[in-house]
Amino acid sequence: MRLSQTFIKTLREAPKDETAKNGALLTRAGYIHKEMAGVYDYLPLGLRVINNLENIIRDELNKLGCEEVLMSALQNAEIWEKTGRFSDQEVDIWFKTELSGGGILGLAPTHEEPMVNMMRKYVTSYKDLPFSVYQFQNKFRNELRAKSGILRGREFLMKDLYSFHTQEEDLDKFYTKVEEAYARIFERVGLGDSTYKTFASGGIFSKFSHEYQTLLPVGEDTVYYNADKSLVLNKEVFEDEVLKEFGADRADFTEDTGAEVGNIFKLKFKYSEPLGLKFVDEDNKQQTVYMGCYGIGVSRLMGVIAEKYADEKGLVWPEMVAPFKYYLVGIGEAGLKRAEELYTGHEDEILFDDRDLRVGEKFADAELMGIPYRVVISDKTLGAGSAEVTERLTGETSLVKIEKLFN
Amino acid sequence: MRLSQTFIKTLREAPKDETAKNGALLTRAGYIHKEMAGVYDYLPLGLRVINNLENIIRDELNKLGCEEVLMSALQNAEIWEKTGRFSDQEVDIWFKTELSGGGILGLAPTHEEPMVNMMRKYVTSYKDLPFSVYQFQNKFRNELRAKSGILRGREFLMKDLYSFHTQEEDLDKFYTKVEEAYARIFERVGLGDSTYKTFASGGIFSKFSHEYQTLLPVGEDTVYYNADKSLVLNKEVFEDEVLKEFGADRADFTEDTGAEVGNIFKLKFKYSEPLGLKFVDEDNKQQTVYMGCYGIGVSRLMGVIAEKYADEKGLVWPEMVAPFKYYLVGIGEAGLKRAEELYTGHEDEILFDDRDLRVGEKFADAELMGIPYRVVISDKTLGAGSAEVTERLTGETSLVKIEKLFN
Repeated sequence: MRLSQTFIKTLREAPKDETAKNGALLTRAGYIHKEMAGVYDYLPLGLRVINNLENIIRDELNKLGCEEVLMSALQNAEIWEKTGRFSDQEVDIWFKTELSGGGILGLAPTHEEPMVNMMRKYVTSYKDLPFSVYQFQNKFRNELRAKSGILRGREFLMKDLYSFHTQEEDLDKFYTKVEEAYARIFERVGLGDSTYKTFASGGIFSKFSHEYQTLLPVGEDTVYYNADKSLVLNKEVFEDEVLKEFGADRADFTEDTGAEVGNIFKLKFKYSEPLGLKFVDEDNKQQTVYMGCYGIGVSRLMGVIAEKYADEKGLVWPEMVAPFKYYLVGIGEAGLKRAEELYTGHEDEILFDDRDLRVGEKFADAELMGIPYRVVISDKTLGAGSAEVTERLTGETSLVKIEKLFN
Repeated sequence: MRLSQTFIKTLREAPKDETAKNGALLTRAGYIHKEMAGVYDYLPLGLRVINNLENIIRDELNKLGCEEVLMSALQNAEIWEKTGRFSDQEVDIWFKTELSGGGILGLAPTHEEPMVNMMRKYVTSYKDLPFSVYQFQNKFRNELRAKSGILRGREFLMKDLYSFHTQEEDLDKFYTKVEEAYARIFERVGLGDSTYKTFASGGIFSKFSHEYQTLLPVGEDTVYYNADKSLVLNKEVFEDEVLKEFGADRADFTEDTGAEVGNIFKLKFKYSEPLGLKFVDEDNKQQTVYMGCYGIGVSRLMGVIAEKYADEKGLVWPEMVAPFKYYLVGIGEAGLKRAEELYTGHEDEILFDDRDLRVGEKFADAELMGIPYRVVISDKTLGAGSAEVTERLTGETSLVKIEKLFN
């Protein structure tokens, strides 16, 4: 992409109402635009990050044989009334709207109910099971406060996966596979070191649920970390009774804050029972389908990565997630000409700063935008048949032979 | 994709409330699931068609240098009040909802207002222009009636493109480029022969607007077609005065019905003026930005293609749009074994019917699903080192050497 051709510009100042670091930096660097608190537009660079995150997640889920769908935001009240979750007392973050001609609709804050309801059409026999279905879809949650940039959105992108099984053992097996896939996903997006499977309260059907918490100063959750046991507990289950169960002692835990980037639940019959998702087993008996559900907040993940890696100069993207791998700058006539030549054929991995700007401004933008490698080609570097490559993360600079670039 | 592994199944009967052919066939073939009138979920095959359509459109727009973004559905009333379009009298298809803590929000039925408003941040000088920005985004329209399957949705996927210029001539030039790109898009999705640029009423700033109408028995628009002049007029402008302007005679037109798959407008100052999108020109004078906007209904396009090509046996997808290119069936022990071998490495282009079903049922599903080529491998065909390949569109069958398959 040529910076001379794009509409985006970096901004000197973040909007005053943007108090979260991720929101401020992503706005200044031209990745997002705020429509209102908790509601953002994704500009070309931001959308590329979102797409990279989606592709990593999609790749790992497809390996498990999960199937991708795309469900609607508009929700029929009837389906949700079967679980009681259309009630504003039960779920207090609904956006609701009225249909011309009558009837109240909701904007989906999650998709268990319509997903289970749809599957009544497709599941009749044990032969139809197991399977798992996911989507990347915008959720709507009417949060009273939304001041954390894209960490907590009123409209946000989520990956939600649902699995369907004949037996608890099969659910357990699949659940373990998802845990492994999640570990790979967080590793691939650059959060492997700081993201922990965390025990949280489980609701009705299981003692615990599992969250994935990325340790982060601005995280909204308090978590307790025990290095020896590799055990992390959400504050909500950090109780003597639970500690005893894990054979752990309160004193061995360190308190920290985490941002929840994912969660996984063994739902069992929680939704399949009230919505009547049944199958006929091998003995011709009707049984209720076992279910699991597994979320990752995709736009939140982008915000967490921004928060985690940013430094005083701006954003720092891990390579797998970055909108472009290289930020290319040509200096002087020969440098500019060579840069132009090298850009051709690599438009998809190079953000080419071909603007008529001072080099200092270009370097500042390269840093603010957080592109992993800044590649500078000047008369001086060309003299050595090389380009100067600076890694954004470490600041380390080295000369790289021109012919070894962009391969 | 293995049919034994997917949750989808073809259905013998369409739901009784699904009167439109596209809705009925797409539902029966397992492409979509209806949440309510005008609101559909896209199942794995349906989502693949949508993705193919998006990729064709994206490819053509990227060639014009357009930049992709993704804007929010939730809309701030303030911005829309500047053009008067938040009023339910002015725009009668709003879904509106209330923010916790107060304030009315809308669900975007289109995006001119937020797009123009956002660009106030990025456009200051003539040097910032021209550029063009598009998105694939779900629009919400509170239609009183929605009985046309995915041809008219209350929640539907649209590609909307907006262009920004310093001069009318530049807008005109870009507009022509978009016309050319649209012709290529409709050609590539298989609607080139039946889709016409149509003159329709222009609104405030231009005499005419251009629609793209695909001639279709169930189309909601009445259009008049003049073969000699390659001229198509929407009924709304089929008047003596207009005909005179084109030097055409009422008698030389044939009446037909069309489905509007796209539209393009020279907006000029229609939105940039009320929203204050200005730039400073080379003489340091403030000017208003010229704009164009260009839509394609992506989910509608899928419905139109379904309607256009379907026959009494089911769907028929043009190759570029089809979820899979091949429908593979193995018959007999050797045929099954060879089919398994051939499937490996081609998972992305083959829908492999490895289910334990009678061959007749498989063939019926292949036809209902509309996959372009059915490939059958049996002891008989293997005897000739071949597979039997049947083209869905023509029904023509030929023997193709195994080694020439899937290349």
